[in-house]
Amino acid sequence: MSLLYWLNVLGLAVFAISGALMAARLKMDPFGVIVLAALTSIGGGTIRDIILDVPQVFWIEEVSYLNTIIIAALVTMVFVNYIRKIPEKLMLVADAAGLALFSVLGAQKALLYGAPGSIAVVMGVITGVAGGMMRDVVCRQVPMILRKDIYATASIVSCITYTGLLMLGVSDKTSSLVGIGVGFVLRLAAIQWHLQLPAYQIGKRS
Amino acid sequence: MSLLYWLNVLGLAVFAISGALMAARLKMDPFGVIVLAALTSIGGGTIRDIILDVPQVFWIEEVSYLNTIIIAALVTMVFVNYIRKIPEKLMLVADAAGLALFSVLGAQKALLYGAPGSIAVVMGVITGVAGGMMRDVVCRQVPMILRKDIYATASIVSCITYTGLLMLGVSDKTSSLVGIGVGFVLRLAAIQWHLQLPAYQIGKRS
Amino acid sequence: MSLLYWLNVLGLAVFAISGALMAARLKMDPFGVIVLAALTSIGGGTIRDIILDVPQVFWIEEVSYLNTIIIAALVTMVFVNYIRKIPEKLMLVADAAGLALFSVLGAQKALLYGAPGSIAVVMGVITGVAGGMMRDVVCRQVPMILRKDIYATASIVSCITYTGLLMLGVSDKTSSLVGIGVGFVLRLAAIQWHLQLPAYQIGKRS
Repeated sequence: MSLLYWLNVLGLAVFAISGALMAARLKMDPFGVIVLAALTSIGGGTIRDIILDVPQVFWIEEVSYLNTIIIAALVTMVFVNYIRKIPEKLMLVADAAGLALFSVLGAQKALLYGAPGSIAVVMGVITGVAGGMMRDVVCRQVPMILRKDIYATASIVSCITYTGLLMLGVSDKTSSLVGIGVGFVLRLAAIQWHLQLPAYQIGKRS
Repeated sequence: MSLLYWLNVLGLAVFAISGALMAARLKMDPFGVIVLAALTSIGGGTIRDIILDVPQVFWIEEVSYLNTIIIAALVTMVFVNYIRKIPEKLMLVADAAGLALFSVLGAQKALLYGAPGSIAVVMGVITGVAGGMMRDVVCRQVPMILRKDIYATASIVSCITYTGLLMLGVSDKTSSLVGIGVGFVLRLAAIQWHLQLPAYQIGKRS
Repeated sequence: MSLLYWLNVLGLAVFAISGALMAARLKMDPFGVIVLAALTSIGGGTIRDIILDVPQVFWIEEVSYLNTIIIAALVTMVFVNYIRKIPEKLMLVADAAGLALFSVLGAQKALLYGAPGSIAVVMGVITGVAGGMMRDVVCRQVPMILRKDIYATASIVSCITYTGLLMLGVSDKTSSLVGIGVGFVLRLAAIQWHLQLPAYQIGKRS
């Protein structure tokens, strides 16, 4: 199996973990946990594939992806059974990994289907943020994108880094790993030190 | 008209009733009621048809489906006008019927388009739960899937029963009626006696 | 460029402004503002194009649409920087313009792809309300459709006016401008004078 396959598996697994941990906090039952893990994992890529109008969405084309999600959700459930408190930071880190991975994988698939660079960046952001956004909306949590720490920014930086390196002639493999790394580290730093871009300063200059 | 047609009409009608009753509680105006009823009714099947990439989504292919929704919403509005209090249990029962019907109908359509059994189960769950989930999110209610009573489980049981019976050589008609019946009865029992699967027991063994 | 192009640009710009103003109230950072503006702007039309199964969704076919959204979001950010308080009424007016424009543009595109009149009205309503609905759900605001003032009604009136005039033989240009005007004025009047249709009167006659 290719690097692309394993990056997809990794992205699905970490998003499934973030969904299952959220479900744990809300005390959902096992099938509810699996449904929420799947929604988080396949949500973004499904919207990407539908907009790109690919012949088959990725989890129909490659059935092992669904197994990945179920295994990740089950392992998370067993793990959670042995701890006292849901580790919120683990959920944020899993979400950050999924965000960076799927942003780059989304941009990559868009380019593969002939989209220009600007569209690839938009498709990457959709792929990276939509699954987590649906998880948060269904679970009635504050969506990550509304929190003050860098989030949409990390996704956009990942996509632009990846697309930019490709255009500079860097290999797809190197570009994708650097793109993923940059977005992931940026988001981790934001989680750790509450990095923020300056927000709207209403009335600042009035 | 075939059994399939009438099962679809029934599913659309009961989901439309559940949406219209929710709208009644929120005192929406008549056109808002119809829009919410339609969102609940066609939401799940539309996502299914888009992912399966069928030539036309079901409510464009068969225009009488939209009439079903409008009639069900209007009848609900008239009915509500004559009662003192919105019957919450009626909303739950209508939602349960839609959940069981659309879970099986979703799995069936996926199989018709050549999906393997595992994908059919996933498509069934999406078809069964998505419309109600959108209704609850837009109306700012706790999504059914987050409540403690069996919900996602009933959908999955319906889909697996239907797909399993088919694989054992049972006719499509019998398999679908049994699949729908099992899921509906399970969900009704959950509503009546607050049946729950064991949830995450955090710290249970620590 | 055609009238159709400019009406689309206008609809995207006003919805982007409504999204950016909402983001300003929630103190999102610049990239969050752009993502929310884009979600609001392209949300409805993307769902329309996916359901109609057009060869390419509108913002991939015409890349200048994305530039429109980014410029509108940036201008809004600069503007907001110079004022003391986010003008809520401006947000409502921008949303009203987007609602009327995209309702008619959605119905028009459905007719162009061969849909009958009733389907065109449904597609128009989806195009008009979905983007704003996603904006409100992600931002955890009360969706416009749940507020008491005429909202879904304005969209439906726009779509029916446009489709009806076309069927009476009126030119597409006149029909669309009248359809947009009627819906926009109706919604503005509802904002100004809190016009409401009679809602469910529970127990009124009991």
